[in-house]
Amino acid sequence: MVTSTENRYRKEVVVSAPINIALVKYWGKRDETRMLPLNDSISLTVDALCAKTRIRVGGEIESDSVNINGDDYDMTSQKRFWKCFAEARKIRRERGDSEDLEECFEVVSKTNFPVAAGLASSAAGFAAIAFALGRLYGFSDEEVAALARIGSGSACRSVFDGLVHWKALEDDKTVVEKVADNWEDLRAIILVISEQEKDVGSSIGMRRTVETSELLKYRVSHVVPERVKTLTEAYKKRDFVMMGNVVMADSDQLHAVCLDTRPALHYMNDSSRHIVKIVEVFNASSFRAAYSFDAGANACVFLKHQDVPAFLATVAKYAQISEDVISNPAKSKSTEAESLLGVLPKNCSISNVIISTVGSGPTVIDEL
Amino acid sequence: MVTSTENRYRKEVVVSAPINIALVKYWGKRDETRMLPLNDSISLTVDALCAKTRIRVGGEIESDSVNINGDDYDMTSQKRFWKCFAEARKIRRERGDSEDLEECFEVVSKTNFPVAAGLASSAAGFAAIAFALGRLYGFSDEEVAALARIGSGSACRSVFDGLVHWKALEDDKTVVEKVADNWEDLRAIILVISEQEKDVGSSIGMRRTVETSELLKYRVSHVVPERVKTLTEAYKKRDFVMMGNVVMADSDQLHAVCLDTRPALHYMNDSSRHIVKIVEVFNASSFRAAYSFDAGANACVFLKHQDVPAFLATVAKYAQISEDVISNPAKSKSTEAESLLGVLPKNCSISNVIISTVGSGPTVIDEL
Repeated sequence: MVTSTENRYRKEVVVSAPINIALVKYWGKRDETRMLPLNDSISLTVDALCAKTRIRVGGEIESDSVNINGDDYDMTSQKRFWKCFAEARKIRRERGDSEDLEECFEVVSKTNFPVAAGLASSAAGFAAIAFALGRLYGFSDEEVAALARIGSGSACRSVFDGLVHWKALEDDKTVVEKVADNWEDLRAIILVISEQEKDVGSSIGMRRTVETSELLKYRVSHVVPERVKTLTEAYKKRDFVMMGNVVMADSDQLHAVCLDTRPALHYMNDSSRHIVKIVEVFNASSFRAAYSFDAGANACVFLKHQDVPAFLATVAKYAQISEDVISNPAKSKSTEAESLLGVLPKNCSISNVIISTVGSGPTVIDEL
Repeated sequence: MVTSTENRYRKEVVVSAPINIALVKYWGKRDETRMLPLNDSISLTVDALCAKTRIRVGGEIESDSVNINGDDYDMTSQKRFWKCFAEARKIRRERGDSEDLEECFEVVSKTNFPVAAGLASSAAGFAAIAFALGRLYGFSDEEVAALARIGSGSACRSVFDGLVHWKALEDDKTVVEKVADNWEDLRAIILVISEQEKDVGSSIGMRRTVETSELLKYRVSHVVPERVKTLTEAYKKRDFVMMGNVVMADSDQLHAVCLDTRPALHYMNDSSRHIVKIVEVFNASSFRAAYSFDAGANACVFLKHQDVPAFLATVAKYAQISEDVISNPAKSKSTEAESLLGVLPKNCSISNVIISTVGSGPTVIDEL
């Protein structure tokens, strides 16, 4: 953090915050204004995809501004930023900060992946803003999580490292906390599918599911609590098979309640399903990979570090991967899964493959 | 029915029985041996797709045989036929038929649609066998329905005309009955999608869902009973909007519980979803069409007779239809739905369009 007297701002901080993928999914708010979730969710951050954000405050900065990847955002129409900034001022006011309570924020943010690719960019973006404001004003972890949540619900899970549990609780309470340390040799492979389009945004989709899906009620009341318990236990014991089975089941159930929505929400497409098959083929001899799809077509596959080469070889065998992504895919050996080849034509085109460690939290960095 | 003394058989009958599409879906057995369903289902037959079946019995016919579309079936491995025939003999024995109780059946059946196309061919096939045996031996409607059910669960709904309700009931009871007369101006359009493949058959898929889906429990106990009531009421009142909304919701929920299955079942593909969008576009100004997908990619769209030309025009506009299917699609007018064109590339290929009246039952016909 730099405190400046010579510069046109009072102080600044530059941070980096990762996206996160829910292992037990968040889908549905019980209160949209206060951003309270209908059910608990659990996530891991995908470190390789992050937002780097610089916030300068005070001094000659006379109005709030946000610039993301070079584009200026209109503060009058961007309610999410406005709400997040208002909450930061409220926290400061409530605890009687001595410095100028009305000083303005200048946010400049860059993501290392396309914002339009449906890769949880808002989670990384708001986690970065919240974390940066927290550093500037000395907010508690709890306050940082609340700030991030107000910008984008799932962003609150990107402000901690390790396995993060966002608890729904009751009344107007919700809490985010780290529940387990990093699983060092766990990896996430993001498979970006080309030409995907997301017809309905997550917020609108969620609202529609809450209003119309009957199955969601059962998911929230009966399925999620059990899965949160099982997944946390599996993760703590480093039991990949147990964890992976919950991850895939919960991803599929998210898309099941989306389908049970009126009108139905379709986020996975044939390419997504092709990747599901590739994971099934890869797991045929032993369970080593678990897929997870958020509200979009792109896949996130969790696996252990040592299984990455073999998995990539399987992907390269059964899908078209852009030449510039992997130049030398390892040759995979024939397996019993070969017999599935008949239903696995190479009709899935993958435009990007991102291999990442998981579970790091946001950090202060030197420069944007 | 022909009784022959000169011929090599004692008597014969030729019948025609239609496929049926469930408006409230059957998915899951509570007893596989006795073919008892987990939940009620309601269906309409699609008259245009049928199995024509001739059964000859007795005389010189010395063993049971089944020939479908020219292919002889091996009776030792075809358990479903064997069970159905055994049940027919049991019914005769129990009521003390005077004629030869062990006489054999020669079944020759033809379907007017490809058996491999995922178009409920077994429902039509077993309904025809059951109906024919019923005519030959004077079985009651109830006995015919039970016979059909033993061959293929949903076949029992093809033995009645009108709106048919297959009740799950309790213990070892189940009953099939007609609950409403034909809705004369209702039509079904079957859109056959080319190159589809069904990875997992319905019986295996159902079993897997029963064993692994938690959402199925809620569907069976809470959702279906209400939908059966609403749908029957809507159909009796000829309220298309009310009926259509239940039909689409229940179709989507079938696929939701399939997705909630371990491993997940994917029966709809991108082309199926493209048809969902076409129906949504068509319904944008007023609700006139309702889609339904069984455990396969092909669509069945219910609509009123007068809306058929406009719907086909919409399909022709947004999908590729084989040249020989519709030679002169009507030109559709621009509507507000045009704005959806952006998400409706013509990337869905339809290989066959079948327009049918609905709700006829099986009949005795003159010849195969």
